[in-house]
Amino acid sequence: MIIDCHGHYTTEPADLKRFRQEQTKAVESRTTPPSRASLKISDDEIRDSLEGAQLKLQRERGTDLTIFSPRASGMGHHIGDESVSLEWSQICNDLIHRVCALYPQNFIGVCQLPQSPGVPPKNSAAELKRCVSELGFVGCNLNPDPSGGYFNAPPLTDKWWYPLYETMVALDVPAMIHVSGCCNPAMHTTGSYYLNADTMAFMQLILSDLFKDFPTLKLIIPHGGGAVPFHWGRFRGLALNNGRPELVDIIRDNIFFDTCVYHQPGINLLTEVVPADNILFASEMVGAVKGVDPKTGHYFDDTKRYVDKAPALGEADRRKIFEGNARRVYSRLDARAAMKAAV
Amino acid sequence: MIIDCHGHYTTEPADLKRFRQEQTKAVESRTTPPSRASLKISDDEIRDSLEGAQLKLQRERGTDLTIFSPRASGMGHHIGDESVSLEWSQICNDLIHRVCALYPQNFIGVCQLPQSPGVPPKNSAAELKRCVSELGFVGCNLNPDPSGGYFNAPPLTDKWWYPLYETMVALDVPAMIHVSGCCNPAMHTTGSYYLNADTMAFMQLILSDLFKDFPTLKLIIPHGGGAVPFHWGRFRGLALNNGRPELVDIIRDNIFFDTCVYHQPGINLLTEVVPADNILFASEMVGAVKGVDPKTGHYFDDTKRYVDKAPALGEADRRKIFEGNARRVYSRLDARAAMKAAV
Repeated sequence: MIIDCHGHYTTEPADLKRFRQEQTKAVESRTTPPSRASLKISDDEIRDSLEGAQLKLQRERGTDLTIFSPRASGMGHHIGDESVSLEWSQICNDLIHRVCALYPQNFIGVCQLPQSPGVPPKNSAAELKRCVSELGFVGCNLNPDPSGGYFNAPPLTDKWWYPLYETMVALDVPAMIHVSGCCNPAMHTTGSYYLNADTMAFMQLILSDLFKDFPTLKLIIPHGGGAVPFHWGRFRGLALNNGRPELVDIIRDNIFFDTCVYHQPGINLLTEVVPADNILFASEMVGAVKGVDPKTGHYFDDTKRYVDKAPALGEADRRKIFEGNARRVYSRLDARAAMKAAV
Repeated sequence: MIIDCHGHYTTEPADLKRFRQEQTKAVESRTTPPSRASLKISDDEIRDSLEGAQLKLQRERGTDLTIFSPRASGMGHHIGDESVSLEWSQICNDLIHRVCALYPQNFIGVCQLPQSPGVPPKNSAAELKRCVSELGFVGCNLNPDPSGGYFNAPPLTDKWWYPLYETMVALDVPAMIHVSGCCNPAMHTTGSYYLNADTMAFMQLILSDLFKDFPTLKLIIPHGGGAVPFHWGRFRGLALNNGRPELVDIIRDNIFFDTCVYHQPGINLLTEVVPADNILFASEMVGAVKGVDPKTGHYFDDTKRYVDKAPALGEADRRKIFEGNARRVYSRLDARAAMKAAV
């Protein structure tokens, strides 16, 4: 079984975009927002949005289950206040739930949190609980920069975040550290902002005692860990200079990288320096980089091909990356998958 | 000859630090700043600060000439106003000039610019001209985020920066894109902030027509290009999706990466995906990562060892990376080097 731990619903039906545009416009003009009841999305529209995209690509590439969450760049935590973020998050999460109900063999849900700049993360705990307990979700996306590009939130190691971690630990769900769309003209959302947030988060984590306080907390750093594997020596040296252990010991049970790295040399490096136990297969499809690489004739984001060919990996490593690690990190996935296998 | 294009004066004599501390305190308390005349640094103190550090390491590692600039994290453009930044920059640049005068075979100068948040970059042109014309410097460090970690400056492709580029082109000097110390608690100066600025800058540049406007402008992105080589497929895909050429064609005459990547797999990747014509040897010593890698028994930042062993490089490539490219990018270096050879 091949589990893709990083998929977003980037092919949402048109009425969801209409709603969000009207909601955003109402925030800007301080007028009445659209009603949630105005949203009209049929099951057929959901099927149509997936059949020619994520489902087609799953079949073509031979992957089985995608851990699926709302469009990351669409979370837009910087838009409006906490109440706007909560309504939008609930709508997006409910839509993911409908996707998973229609295609229980293909998708399992991860939620967007109703974060908002300056608002304590503990306020997101209720929506996380709802998604896990009522909708069967297995994790969340946690935004380390709800400002949308100005990096003015406390570091992830600050006690500001602790109440949310307590809820995650109690529910036994991991978080993928993932920013949203960038409203800062200096940074490109998928080109630099995503990667920079990943690198920032890793550096925050390795100098802290966060995992002493939360030994079972599990965080996935997407996009192959941003700049981290390429600069593994730099981060190792900085950790050691600061009296911290070796990186492999710091990350062992708590920090994981995905394989959203879109060329063979990148995946080769990732799998050479990061232990296979800390890598989760992912493609981010349909996502940041669409289209076919003219040099290889294959989709840039067909990351399974790169993992298949990575010389540092043995067959046992590949099984961990494709399946075993995801079952370990998303522990509720295993309960669900077992349940589904029994169906 | 081996030219290290990225060295900072990180072992400055104590009185420079004393001056800066007093200057910073005066800014904070709005009291009278220390006088420039109070600075007392003897030639012997300068020699002492270098003999056991940069010069010792040059000898041990077999490198010849370091392109040398003030401590990057010390530029502190966010401290005080434009006049504070100008005085501090002139002092730091003059000190680099003294270093280069004492050791003309070992160091050649690159200047810090007197940038300040919100102040037009054209105001830095005069100090750049002074350093190049009067002090014999061969380039500058250009800070893409004078705020010190909040990334609120216009992108490097904005016309805001053009007057400075015009001066650079007229003087025929390149800039290394390099932020300074981070005052944002979310980001670690040398661990994430430096790399994130590098990645941000590259993404700004590849989607723009900057080099159509300035065909001879040369920019060095340090720290191996941040996250870029590791995500070469992502950046290639994003460029192609945006109707831009292949990355190798975009960067050809204008964008260069240095080799400040502190482990063998990183340098292997860098030299596999980036053309040898666009890589400049550098170590950043004595810099971000001090100390010896317990796994190899060698200094983390002894990057010459990694370049020597990179399997993608032939001997001609190595000559370019160690010397030829630096002479091409820092064209005034060649004039100086020739002059020195004749001495």
